[in-house]
Amino acid sequence: MRIDLLRSGSKSLPRQISETLAQRITSGLLQPGSRLPSVRGLASSLKVSQVTVSKAYAELEARGHIICSQGKGCYVAERQRTAPDTAAGWQDSYDDYLPRAQLWRNFDYREVEYPFHLAAIHSSLLPLGPIGATMAALVKEQPELMASYGNFQGDAELREVMRRHLQSRGIAIGPDDLMITSGSQQGIDLVARTFVGPGDTVYLEAPSYTGAIDVFAGRGAEMIFVPVDGEGMMVDKLTAMCDLRPPKLIYTNPTFQNPSGVTMSMTRRQRLLELARSYRCLIVEDDPFSDLYFHQPPPVSIKSMDTGGHVVYMKSFSKVLAPGSRIACVAAEGNILSRLIAAKSASDLGGPLLTQRAVLPFIDRQYEAYAAKLRTALRQRKEAAARLLKQYAPAGVTWRLPEGGLNLWLQLPEAPAIERLHALAEREGISFLPGDVCYAGDLPSRHIRLCYSQLTEEGMQRGLKQFLLLLGQHLHSLRS
Amino acid sequence: MRIDLLRSGSKSLPRQISETLAQRITSGLLQPGSRLPSVRGLASSLKVSQVTVSKAYAELEARGHIICSQGKGCYVAERQRTAPDTAAGWQDSYDDYLPRAQLWRNFDYREVEYPFHLAAIHSSLLPLGPIGATMAALVKEQPELMASYGNFQGDAELREVMRRHLQSRGIAIGPDDLMITSGSQQGIDLVARTFVGPGDTVYLEAPSYTGAIDVFAGRGAEMIFVPVDGEGMMVDKLTAMCDLRPPKLIYTNPTFQNPSGVTMSMTRRQRLLELARSYRCLIVEDDPFSDLYFHQPPPVSIKSMDTGGHVVYMKSFSKVLAPGSRIACVAAEGNILSRLIAAKSASDLGGPLLTQRAVLPFIDRQYEAYAAKLRTALRQRKEAAARLLKQYAPAGVTWRLPEGGLNLWLQLPEAPAIERLHALAEREGISFLPGDVCYAGDLPSRHIRLCYSQLTEEGMQRGLKQFLLLLGQHLHSLRS
Repeated sequence: MRIDLLRSGSKSLPRQISETLAQRITSGLLQPGSRLPSVRGLASSLKVSQVTVSKAYAELEARGHIICSQGKGCYVAERQRTAPDTAAGWQDSYDDYLPRAQLWRNFDYREVEYPFHLAAIHSSLLPLGPIGATMAALVKEQPELMASYGNFQGDAELREVMRRHLQSRGIAIGPDDLMITSGSQQGIDLVARTFVGPGDTVYLEAPSYTGAIDVFAGRGAEMIFVPVDGEGMMVDKLTAMCDLRPPKLIYTNPTFQNPSGVTMSMTRRQRLLELARSYRCLIVEDDPFSDLYFHQPPPVSIKSMDTGGHVVYMKSFSKVLAPGSRIACVAAEGNILSRLIAAKSASDLGGPLLTQRAVLPFIDRQYEAYAAKLRTALRQRKEAAARLLKQYAPAGVTWRLPEGGLNLWLQLPEAPAIERLHALAEREGISFLPGDVCYAGDLPSRHIRLCYSQLTEEGMQRGLKQFLLLLGQHLHSLRS
Repeated sequence: MRIDLLRSGSKSLPRQISETLAQRITSGLLQPGSRLPSVRGLASSLKVSQVTVSKAYAELEARGHIICSQGKGCYVAERQRTAPDTAAGWQDSYDDYLPRAQLWRNFDYREVEYPFHLAAIHSSLLPLGPIGATMAALVKEQPELMASYGNFQGDAELREVMRRHLQSRGIAIGPDDLMITSGSQQGIDLVARTFVGPGDTVYLEAPSYTGAIDVFAGRGAEMIFVPVDGEGMMVDKLTAMCDLRPPKLIYTNPTFQNPSGVTMSMTRRQRLLELARSYRCLIVEDDPFSDLYFHQPPPVSIKSMDTGGHVVYMKSFSKVLAPGSRIACVAAEGNILSRLIAAKSASDLGGPLLTQRAVLPFIDRQYEAYAAKLRTALRQRKEAAARLLKQYAPAGVTWRLPEGGLNLWLQLPEAPAIERLHALAEREGISFLPGDVCYAGDLPSRHIRLCYSQLTEEGMQRGLKQFLLLLGQHLHSLRS
């Protein structure tokens, strides 16, 4: 069992060990019934004292993650979920580098009637008709597109279209300063695998996007979470922290932030960029939602002010056009981009050319008109959701209405015994995202993220009402 | 600048430093004109003596990689290729974890008349018609496929079809024991990021697949290369080496090996599996070519004999059906597979559902008849290539005719000053794969890989003859 320990870190060693193990257990990477290494064995392999390991195990046992018995050792406690077939015993002790997998645990295999957990747009709102028609025409007229490995960096024609698109948003870059990725998730992953390694300091917002946390955790990064207020990441606090621990990279989702919905102010955007300049580090600006505003357009992107190649900017197109197309773009300059392209080649040899060409004409000519209509449709849903919240949200539950994007971020009066709430909701065909996975630790969170755009409007209304009523009963039962 | 040093390794520290830097320079990660860190600075950051760094720099200078001048420091030497626009200076010193990127350097941006460098099948031989027709029908009838994020593990229906396919090849697994990836390249990458980390020992064949070497190098693995003879990887030697350095993972391409074309004997397959059992390690069996035999079917896969979950088996479908579809499958069991699925989720949230459904009916019903025809077509090309080799190969050039697959592996009488040969060939519109990139080191190799199936038959014949004549002149000029 491999656990990366930071001996100079602020967390105690037992804490680091117990948190890593707890993450592996809650994410399902360590299955119920698996035997943990002996205290002596783990102490020796981690080069720590046996007392340290004993403390970590005691903490895990106190939290119900493991069961220890004299002479028999410690085992992962059973949970409700059924475990997949256990394979040959040797596999349990085969080391990996995957300390956390919340994305996998929370998003896969969820076929429920009311999927509020996924930040997506209902297919009736997406331009599947025109994109599908382009695709059908292409496979007939240029079948060889399916035969090509394409270019690691992405199709040159689509890159030119994206360059013009970004230019219209104030981001002035050359056609070779961007790369096409399999969704922004791959973009984040490529940055992490290229530039982040064990012990490197990565700053994120608290809360942040689960998929990003997973990726940085997988690289063994030391993640530091900076609180968010009504103007986004608190750059003051970040600055103070950077003095103690210089950043290797700052990950931010400044516009209609996932999950909180908050937008970073212009002043903070500028200060964040200055910070990156003075620390000579990268900012990853993940921007899936800036076209999805309900009232005014949000402030310009950090990238649009970047003159020193400090910002790796990511814009997802698939979220807005067709999630299954897995098309996003990453804008960066110089050898930062070259290195990302090299990582992309080793990662999958480049994305499918056909899909890139299939979305091209739509992005080029129909995107703006479509985005305007989509904004209206999303605003209506958000307003419907707001009415339901006002009417049915249990006492003590608060929220801030987002000014764009796809998510509601509810704060409950107390941590809601999330596993039980999950089970109750699942029984009624409802899924939601527990706030816990948007933070690093395994402390229970008081938040829940709900997406209001993944269902039809009636479906969303029915499901949301049902969920709020259920949440009320559940919170009530916790108190009594 | 980050360089992972193995202080217990068999290579001297100056050697390790100079090899890593040489790789970064030849792969283009360090651009001509970039300034290397000072001897003192690098020595201090690597915690080695200044003498060690000086030795490494002297070695690099002797090999022409860098230019050092008193007082000014050391710079990467200019090469023929033009460098991309250099960005702000800070980027050069921004650390990465990408020691090698041969794949990117050798495969991207190659639009030449005779692309012999890429192991692929000419589009006229691929079933693009039926796959395209399915895709066109799907986007019309089920446009919502484009809207779905799908399942991280891959579409359940396609997995069932692949399960039956693998069963017909003697691999008996359940429908949940496989995962769909974006080509086998992603499969290799997922295994590496999940199970391989700094200092872990990975055994590969010498020569091996460039894309695999890049990936393991990127994880900081200690790669050990086991020679190949007429029966594949020399498992005797591997066994002896494993005694000294137990394997974390063994990567093999046992059937019509890329690049050498050699097939591993049945006995060695069995012994390899025994070895994995006794060392409790994983074998990655990369199998893109086993359906592409010219005479007899090759021995059964190692996976088909695996009862303990030791083999992660990868079969590319995109290579044979439509490279642009990026569809491969990975078969593995138990929590080895669960962990790979978790890594897949963090890597790209799962592959496009539409493409998976588009190849499904073809794999299900037409694959076998198609593969039989493809074998005949490939055998004819291979025979045509063999005739040309016999007639035009320069004196001293040798080769072994492959019994399947897509590649010719030529051995030259001496190392061919590969950069010059590249430039000469490029001028005539010809590309090839230098053998160097199929090994770890940066020692010049005497080999060249040519693919005979990526062109039309006439194109291949014209280009191959032209290349062999050019090679003859080039070798002659080297001697005189």
